[in-house]
Amino acid sequence: MSLVAVGTVAFDDIETPSGRAEKVIGGACTYISLAASYFVKPVRIVSVVGDDFPEETLDYLKKKGVDLEGLQIRKGEKSFFWAGRYHRDLNTRDTLDTQLNVLANFDPKLPASYRSPDYLMLGNLTPSVQLRVLSQLKKRPKLIAMDTMNFWMDTAMPDLRKVMKKVDVLTINDEEARQLSGEHSLVNAAKAIHSMGPKFLIIKKGEHGALLFHKRLMFYAPALPLAEVTDPTGAGDTFAGGFMGWMAKSDDVSFDNLKRGVIYGSAMASFCVEKFSIERMKGLTQGMIQKRVKSFADLVHVAM
Amino acid sequence: MSLVAVGTVAFDDIETPSGRAEKVIGGACTYISLAASYFVKPVRIVSVVGDDFPEETLDYLKKKGVDLEGLQIRKGEKSFFWAGRYHRDLNTRDTLDTQLNVLANFDPKLPASYRSPDYLMLGNLTPSVQLRVLSQLKKRPKLIAMDTMNFWMDTAMPDLRKVMKKVDVLTINDEEARQLSGEHSLVNAAKAIHSMGPKFLIIKKGEHGALLFHKRLMFYAPALPLAEVTDPTGAGDTFAGGFMGWMAKSDDVSFDNLKRGVIYGSAMASFCVEKFSIERMKGLTQGMIQKRVKSFADLVHVAM
Repeated sequence: MSLVAVGTVAFDDIETPSGRAEKVIGGACTYISLAASYFVKPVRIVSVVGDDFPEETLDYLKKKGVDLEGLQIRKGEKSFFWAGRYHRDLNTRDTLDTQLNVLANFDPKLPASYRSPDYLMLGNLTPSVQLRVLSQLKKRPKLIAMDTMNFWMDTAMPDLRKVMKKVDVLTINDEEARQLSGEHSLVNAAKAIHSMGPKFLIIKKGEHGALLFHKRLMFYAPALPLAEVTDPTGAGDTFAGGFMGWMAKSDDVSFDNLKRGVIYGSAMASFCVEKFSIERMKGLTQGMIQKRVKSFADLVHVAM
Repeated sequence: MSLVAVGTVAFDDIETPSGRAEKVIGGACTYISLAASYFVKPVRIVSVVGDDFPEETLDYLKKKGVDLEGLQIRKGEKSFFWAGRYHRDLNTRDTLDTQLNVLANFDPKLPASYRSPDYLMLGNLTPSVQLRVLSQLKKRPKLIAMDTMNFWMDTAMPDLRKVMKKVDVLTINDEEARQLSGEHSLVNAAKAIHSMGPKFLIIKKGEHGALLFHKRLMFYAPALPLAEVTDPTGAGDTFAGGFMGWMAKSDDVSFDNLKRGVIYGSAMASFCVEKFSIERMKGLTQGMIQKRVKSFADLVHVAM
């Protein structure tokens, strides 16, 4: 099934307790499309970069089955840049620098081949940009997932509410779920968020795993405890890419199959954090992915 | 199989976002024995109270199958008292008051019938007191579990090391595991802690669940997301009581059976937090416990 992914393609400076990485490849859409490419091809991306973005990386993405027709390359402009420093616990980080550059006036344009996707992933972006993508669709996808963040809750809540009304799945972290709903309990937060639109809610809890809520149903996929976490950047986007890649591949939007999607997303994210930038996401094999998925199943397996 | 539990029997003043409770029944051993009593009888407790402790509560514990022969009741003295206030996230709390009272010079004395237990739970107490209990045993129990806390890591590390060398299972929270091992990754922390003695390590992560480590094996039991958490006090002790109650009942110290113990402990703890003090732990039925255990199994169930 066809998959379209929207989000940033960018440069990052990253500092974690394991070290530093300067001007490395980043961006939500980069992580989403790379993770999804292990499940379905092509992954059609909607994004924008400057002409400073390396041709080599674009070639690599093409080779992985990422369709770049919807990627705008702006001559004489610079790509989006983010710099951040993680705290020792890796669950919190400080933004050191944000240079919007090409993102400042990004107007997403969906090529004709992009306008009837079966599956759509709206990566974390200005809600008005997410809305402009939705307005260009010719038919309603089978499943629309969106990611967002606290920044948009603080600054663009009216637009965010409009996008939420149009999507099936919202992926946010636990603090964002609490902020969005005004509820401390995640069970109550889920109820409140369902009433805003998304009938499925995925709460990402980093090293503590991910929760999937749907009506009165709950599913908890713990994260695999890892000996070394090098760089959490892109873990949430990689989760979304693995999740939506699986959904597009399996083409089944039942709760039971979303649970599988959460496991695939978690497995892909567990690779992502092992190296800086997208390094670990290159050159995975289906065998490695299946083995990691089995580790997730084994982790919670108990015969009562 | 016989179970002995050691720890405090006490009064608590508790303040949580849900409300306040003054001079209510608390203490690690109270929670441990009450939770374990749903699995095995008698639960023999080793503790101390003043003559201010309500006869009514002691009668209630006796009725539940708790053997009080090892409970010292000191005339003219006051019971241990703790007062605390939980933060909004319920994962952190401030101690407002601690009055050791009878605990200041507690010298545990094991009655003859207590000296050959099959299962022994050393609740959180001064490590030297835990050692004095171990020194009175006539034979090595099949499984010894101990709980401890950061306070003893700060103030009594040499004694704590001695106790750890003699036990099979250590239960601590994630921050304590990091402090004890000097490792941030829980996988690496587990390796380090195994080398200090306990061949099984249970890391309690509150609302994020519990991890069981043994050699290279891992098991993750997520906590059941709850709509309301009224009072987290005693959740860790109730977990330990449910865990050791199950172990004593099933009498199987394999890793697979410890996993079941972690689920039973988690289920009992999920009841505990629903009301202040020990209120929710009174009057549970086997049917309610089995139903809750099933909720834990359903929470992670996915057919891949």
